[in-house]
Amino acid sequence: MNETLVLTPERILEVTEDVLRRYGLAKATVVDVARALDVSHGSVYRHFPSKASLRQAVAKRWLDRFNAPLQKIVDASGPAPARLERWLRTLFANKHKKLSDDPEMFATYLALAQEACQAVSSHKECLCDQVERILADGVKQGAFEIADVKATSRAVFDATIRFHHPAHSEEWNDAGLAARIDAVLALLLRGLEAPGKR
Amino acid sequence: MNETLVLTPERILEVTEDVLRRYGLAKATVVDVARALDVSHGSVYRHFPSKASLRQAVAKRWLDRFNAPLQKIVDASGPAPARLERWLRTLFANKHKKLSDDPEMFATYLALAQEACQAVSSHKECLCDQVERILADGVKQGAFEIADVKATSRAVFDATIRFHHPAHSEEWNDAGLAARIDAVLALLLRGLEAPGKR
Repeated sequence: MNETLVLTPERILEVTEDVLRRYGLAKATVVDVARALDVSHGSVYRHFPSKASLRQAVAKRWLDRFNAPLQKIVDASGPAPARLERWLRTLFANKHKKLSDDPEMFATYLALAQEACQAVSSHKECLCDQVERILADGVKQGAFEIADVKATSRAVFDATIRFHHPAHSEEWNDAGLAARIDAVLALLLRGLEAPGKR
Repeated sequence: MNETLVLTPERILEVTEDVLRRYGLAKATVVDVARALDVSHGSVYRHFPSKASLRQAVAKRWLDRFNAPLQKIVDASGPAPARLERWLRTLFANKHKKLSDDPEMFATYLALAQEACQAVSSHKECLCDQVERILADGVKQGAFEIADVKATSRAVFDATIRFHHPAHSEEWNDAGLAARIDAVLALLLRGLEAPGKR
């Protein structure tokens, strides 16, 4: 058997997602994953030494998928205030979309993420780093006045938690959500603004 | 029996709290409450027609207790920015204290509140109204510049949700919490500031 030659971690994670979708988190096993891949479960364990490590990797992969479109906004040029607003709105929209597209898988991933603390905290760190880069650009551009860019990037993240943290996902269907987002973003952008820019 | 003459709703709620503390939410019954009051359970039902209505009233009473110290800050005179900061810090501190003083009762009340949606939403409305009063004062004083005071008061409430919503109570023990609160409050206060006040 030279199955391991083609059996990449990425391929295992892809199939694990399918298996989770079909069987649900409680019932899906590594044997199901191996069967779906048409390999022995030992081959899966060669890449992920335990069921826990496989689940953590699935959670990490799901969280990482949020980063790419956001990173593009960080890397784009242009005025920082507009980029910050776009970054935040994209984060909210992508989280809300994941929930509305497939509420069951959202719940599955949420449960996985609750086990995978390490993956979640690096996800948050990464998002705060992205905000930090936009804020630093804004200071250079003279658009923002910020004493502590690192602390403030976390403050922007914390102050918008209602719109991106899954603990609040039940409130994402509120009729007034868009207006509430607008009000918070306006307040934060004003709080960052350099004097004389208003 | 003239027990109902002295059996006030307030007295029933007080004793219900004791009973919940002793037996826990899952086991406590209306009969336990009646026994602790030394009355028949019919007497309790005369004031609270169902177990659900009793539980809702307990949740409401718990939530209402947060309001009094905050209302004092609303009614005080003095510069609105300092009052807003004090109001928010008092809200956070009182929620965090409730959790650290008695984590079991905090969990009990949280479960009760999740059933008592109506009580929770009027609690939130009341808190937002209090913020609105302080913001309106700040506009009159020339300290704040705010286009829509109602929407902005809700934005202040939403932007600080990490520090007062029980869904985030697991994060209230973070070593860095005080610094995170400082950073969010500084950002929000700057966002409310009238130009030329900086």
